[in-house]
Amino acid sequence: MNITRNWLRHAEGSALIEFGETRVLCAATVEDGVPRWRRGTGEGWVTAEYAMLPRATDTRGTRESVKGKIGGRTHEISRLIGRSLRAVVDFKAMGEHTITLDCDVLQADGGTRTAAITGAYVALSDAVKYLRKRRNLKNNPLTGSVAAISVGVVQGKPRLDLNYLEDSVAETDMNVVVTGTGEFIEVQGTAEGAPFDRALLDSLLDLAVGGCAELTEIQKKALAG
Amino acid sequence: MNITRNWLRHAEGSALIEFGETRVLCAATVEDGVPRWRRGTGEGWVTAEYAMLPRATDTRGTRESVKGKIGGRTHEISRLIGRSLRAVVDFKAMGEHTITLDCDVLQADGGTRTAAITGAYVALSDAVKYLRKRRNLKNNPLTGSVAAISVGVVQGKPRLDLNYLEDSVAETDMNVVVTGTGEFIEVQGTAEGAPFDRALLDSLLDLAVGGCAELTEIQKKALAG
Amino acid sequence: MNITRNWLRHAEGSALIEFGETRVLCAATVEDGVPRWRRGTGEGWVTAEYAMLPRATDTRGTRESVKGKIGGRTHEISRLIGRSLRAVVDFKAMGEHTITLDCDVLQADGGTRTAAITGAYVALSDAVKYLRKRRNLKNNPLTGSVAAISVGVVQGKPRLDLNYLEDSVAETDMNVVVTGTGEFIEVQGTAEGAPFDRALLDSLLDLAVGGCAELTEIQKKALAG
Amino acid sequence: MNITRNWLRHAEGSALIEFGETRVLCAATVEDGVPRWRRGTGEGWVTAEYAMLPRATDTRGTRESVKGKIGGRTHEISRLIGRSLRAVVDFKAMGEHTITLDCDVLQADGGTRTAAITGAYVALSDAVKYLRKRRNLKNNPLTGSVAAISVGVVQGKPRLDLNYLEDSVAETDMNVVVTGTGEFIEVQGTAEGAPFDRALLDSLLDLAVGGCAELTEIQKKALAG
Amino acid sequence: MNITRNWLRHAEGSALIEFGETRVLCAATVEDGVPRWRRGTGEGWVTAEYAMLPRATDTRGTRESVKGKIGGRTHEISRLIGRSLRAVVDFKAMGEHTITLDCDVLQADGGTRTAAITGAYVALSDAVKYLRKRRNLKNNPLTGSVAAISVGVVQGKPRLDLNYLEDSVAETDMNVVVTGTGEFIEVQGTAEGAPFDRALLDSLLDLAVGGCAELTEIQKKALAG
Amino acid sequence: MNITRNWLRHAEGSALIEFGETRVLCAATVEDGVPRWRRGTGEGWVTAEYAMLPRATDTRGTRESVKGKIGGRTHEISRLIGRSLRAVVDFKAMGEHTITLDCDVLQADGGTRTAAITGAYVALSDAVKYLRKRRNLKNNPLTGSVAAISVGVVQGKPRLDLNYLEDSVAETDMNVVVTGTGEFIEVQGTAEGAPFDRALLDSLLDLAVGGCAELTEIQKKALAG
Repeated sequence: MNITRNWLRHAEGSALIEFGETRVLCAATVEDGVPRWRRGTGEGWVTAEYAMLPRATDTRGTRESVKGKIGGRTHEISRLIGRSLRAVVDFKAMGEHTITLDCDVLQADGGTRTAAITGAYVALSDAVKYLRKRRNLKNNPLTGSVAAISVGVVQGKPRLDLNYLEDSVAETDMNVVVTGTGEFIEVQGTAEGAPFDRALLDSLLDLAVGGCAELTEIQKKALAG
Repeated sequence: MNITRNWLRHAEGSALIEFGETRVLCAATVEDGVPRWRRGTGEGWVTAEYAMLPRATDTRGTRESVKGKIGGRTHEISRLIGRSLRAVVDFKAMGEHTITLDCDVLQADGGTRTAAITGAYVALSDAVKYLRKRRNLKNNPLTGSVAAISVGVVQGKPRLDLNYLEDSVAETDMNVVVTGTGEFIEVQGTAEGAPFDRALLDSLLDLAVGGCAELTEIQKKALAG
Repeated sequence: MNITRNWLRHAEGSALIEFGETRVLCAATVEDGVPRWRRGTGEGWVTAEYAMLPRATDTRGTRESVKGKIGGRTHEISRLIGRSLRAVVDFKAMGEHTITLDCDVLQADGGTRTAAITGAYVALSDAVKYLRKRRNLKNNPLTGSVAAISVGVVQGKPRLDLNYLEDSVAETDMNVVVTGTGEFIEVQGTAEGAPFDRALLDSLLDLAVGGCAELTEIQKKALAG
Repeated sequence: MNITRNWLRHAEGSALIEFGETRVLCAATVEDGVPRWRRGTGEGWVTAEYAMLPRATDTRGTRESVKGKIGGRTHEISRLIGRSLRAVVDFKAMGEHTITLDCDVLQADGGTRTAAITGAYVALSDAVKYLRKRRNLKNNPLTGSVAAISVGVVQGKPRLDLNYLEDSVAETDMNVVVTGTGEFIEVQGTAEGAPFDRALLDSLLDLAVGGCAELTEIQKKALAG
Repeated sequence: MNITRNWLRHAEGSALIEFGETRVLCAATVEDGVPRWRRGTGEGWVTAEYAMLPRATDTRGTRESVKGKIGGRTHEISRLIGRSLRAVVDFKAMGEHTITLDCDVLQADGGTRTAAITGAYVALSDAVKYLRKRRNLKNNPLTGSVAAISVGVVQGKPRLDLNYLEDSVAETDMNVVVTGTGEFIEVQGTAEGAPFDRALLDSLLDLAVGGCAELTEIQKKALAG
Repeated sequence: MNITRNWLRHAEGSALIEFGETRVLCAATVEDGVPRWRRGTGEGWVTAEYAMLPRATDTRGTRESVKGKIGGRTHEISRLIGRSLRAVVDFKAMGEHTITLDCDVLQADGGTRTAAITGAYVALSDAVKYLRKRRNLKNNPLTGSVAAISVGVVQGKPRLDLNYLEDSVAETDMNVVVTGTGEFIEVQGTAEGAPFDRALLDSLLDLAVGGCAELTEIQKKALAG
């Protein structure tokens, strides 16, 4: 696991996160103003867009811009990333500004959505610093940190951070988003093969919480660097 | 909670499910053949499409056909319904047939996605019977039943099946899909306000499993009728 | 023929109309303001959108939201419904408000467009009452009532209100929209097979005017209920 | 009224029709094969597409290709033209060939849809001749001729072939499509202002039938030239 | 080569240009205001849209409005036309007005983009006169004239203004846009077969400059007429 | 100028090209088969798609997938890249295979289209090697190399490879695509401000040919590495 902070020159915050063979480029953009439905509230907004380059995967995918529409999977992951980051943001403290996180998968080998969340937090963190300084904000809009990991069951055994080959044969697949203090932001578990029972669910959650604690340390180092 | 089976005349299976003020019309369509990527495998497919009538809600929404694209929320829910139903289907036993579940929300008052899953199971069940008879299938393609419920935390207290007003102030929102034998198919928990801890997660899961057991009984009665 | 008024809870007016096996859900929405091109005129606007659920028909149709565009037939019928209702509305009396009629076919067995017009009038009527009361309008924006029926020639004989099977073999197909006082709002006659002569046109019009008179009575009863 | 036959070089049939200031370019294309739903029937197909150049009208309209979707009016008129021409075609005699009529309005001053039908018949007629010769068809696929005219009521008086200014103040607007032998293919009458009665409908029909007879003569001359 | 000025009645400037069998209808529209990104600058804007009727070519093409998107070739040519005309416009002198050039190919036989530029200049010229008079502009927004021609290499020999058959076998294809005083606005040369050397490039440029000088004379005559 | 070959793991050829602050990721995909219009000819095909990440630039751009359509600039550049590479490919030698070049701009600071062509050649070269080996091709499908550079006039002086700031004030902008042996594949010169004369055109071409010769050397080194 490797995070290269400030990989981009123009963005107010950015990180290239590498998780095995997976590489996601996360860029944070700070803009004045908020979406129409939020204007006049004095509160900010954080949103995310996830996408994959056509040849990030083993076989080339058609670009969504060429298809003329965004697929369900893309929508779902973009929403998950945005929701996860918003859980550690104090919108009042932000004022009416918007931060957009672009998470573009340059190479995919499993766990792209959780890598995106983990890397996007680093980019967000720098963007918030930029915004605070630039707009002279009194309170810190960031209330905590966020990391995410995927866990799964392969051949009956709970496993951390599956790569693509393992992922495709996993019997259960779970994405867990956790704060730096170990609380849950999002838990998404899906039976790919057979339904799972409470005991298995519990052991997957334990595994995920432990994995996220390690990711939190790596984020801290990157941000301290 | 009320399920009217065979509300439609043309569909191979259908159910109008009413959950408080929420009303979802579920229609199952049986077709020969499977999507291109599955051809020649000898296995069937089950998929779902969720949509909401423009005036199902308190204020009128723009039709997605008029916008020319399907929103992220619609995609996400359609995928959830399909995944949930596929967890109790034996595709080999189905042969190369496709069953499509159309879940159209006629009126919405919270919990439309879980109502859709619960009603769609009833429609699916009748469609599978139709298919078995018509194509003389040896084994039953249905391996179990599925019900779903939403649980949440309102003013610090875990609550079953929130309606829209409660949903909009819920601090945590969880959708749980459970088999008739009480195992998990899908667990989706989201912190809307503050992150949640393991104890709260546990109590929400308990509540959901109990609620789904009741729904399973109502499904059985509807299918016996 | 059956009309269930106020089938929906949120809409300012609604009706479920059943015509044989055809079922159309009509919902009226009242909103402040008018489309851009009408602003500042002091006049209101009435518009309609027609759509069909995918499994309303014998074989499942692809959703227009999935196709990403609205078909010609849908456009044509939406425009016909809007035009028909506008013929009995005094826009000056309405003030700058818009009423949108959503007519969604839940089940189709011929005559969906004429059923939609007939049901939409009932929903419109309640929406206008709501608007009058709410905005304290002096004059009644409704100047009359509207009903519509389809007539056709099957095996050489003029017939009222064809169902789908008859419709598909009709030699001539005519949709007639008539006011409560028996005047024409719209006459649309199409030779499906051979061209038709004036005598046949005349007998179809007679039949339609008689049928609409009956529909007007049913509308009155529903609105009196 | 003027028809210039063979205005285009590539098309199998074409006509530039001028009706007052209205100018519509009609091009007929003959292709082997029929749409998927008609394959294997041994029968042909005739279809039409109507469009307007952006500056055909007094103020420039946005191109439908730029909007990315076809408007309701365009769809409605395309369907009307196709339906009208199909009424005089014997599909069995055509064999599995498709003729597409493109009707592009170069300049608009009222009556574009009826001009398009009248001109498209001339282009169709030449395309049918081409097809007959080329494919050695035994029977003539054309069973008659078609002409169309718009009639309306301006200041209480029935009027033939309204131009744009008159059209916009017309109280009733009717498009009538008639065969060369004076029978009806399509009758579309719409109350723009007040509903209309049977007597008025009758006088409009008389007027239209007379006008179409004149157009039929002009078509004959053009095709004889 | 033939230019018919004022072929359209509504447009503020128009020309039908015929180049061999190629026929392009160019219409200029004058509107108050400029695109959003240019507001408040006091400067005007000139833009162009190019399109082809479906049967302009030997085989019928699908309409871009039906496809729901504009193709790359259309975009590319529209941008070229706009850029070419803007090179002879003084935007300050125009004030905040927009002139849109619609270039619709009615019949195509090679060289449609260069014909469009040459004809659009004539339409633009009349539109600028209209704007100057109407808005009482002090300085002439037109700073020169523009003509364009395509040159190519067929069987090793440089050739002026290729028609479609020649174009399709050309080894090199070059479009050159030149001012009335013989300076370059745009040079686009493409090796269709083998790469080309400097000597060939030079001889193609000589040929093009000569051809454009002739076109400039024809434009002058048309505008003097 | 820096080229990192094989930056991606899955693609059959790839290069990350850095040109000042500009960074373009080029990925080549080899697939069996060719587009429909080329089937049965025994010849291969090479095509390209260009895109820019939303935050590649100083201010964030809207994704084309979100807009639902590809812009004119994107189309134009994709076509230019494809055309440039095809000029050095022997399609007969390739057999019926397709190579797609995806050129995604990760960071932009001027000259992205020429950087994309130069980098794409390196990716193409590796993909061709892969294809030759895998399909045992007798003859080399690559007939030469391609490099591209942008030149312009800033403050009256010809300049090589403008960055964004210079580009935006350039009076003339020219993109030149040259083979490894110094012949032209594409010359695109545009007057941004004043039209340019032949002498200036000549000096820009000289400059470009020299620049491309240097790029050819860098490509050779990368491919030898």
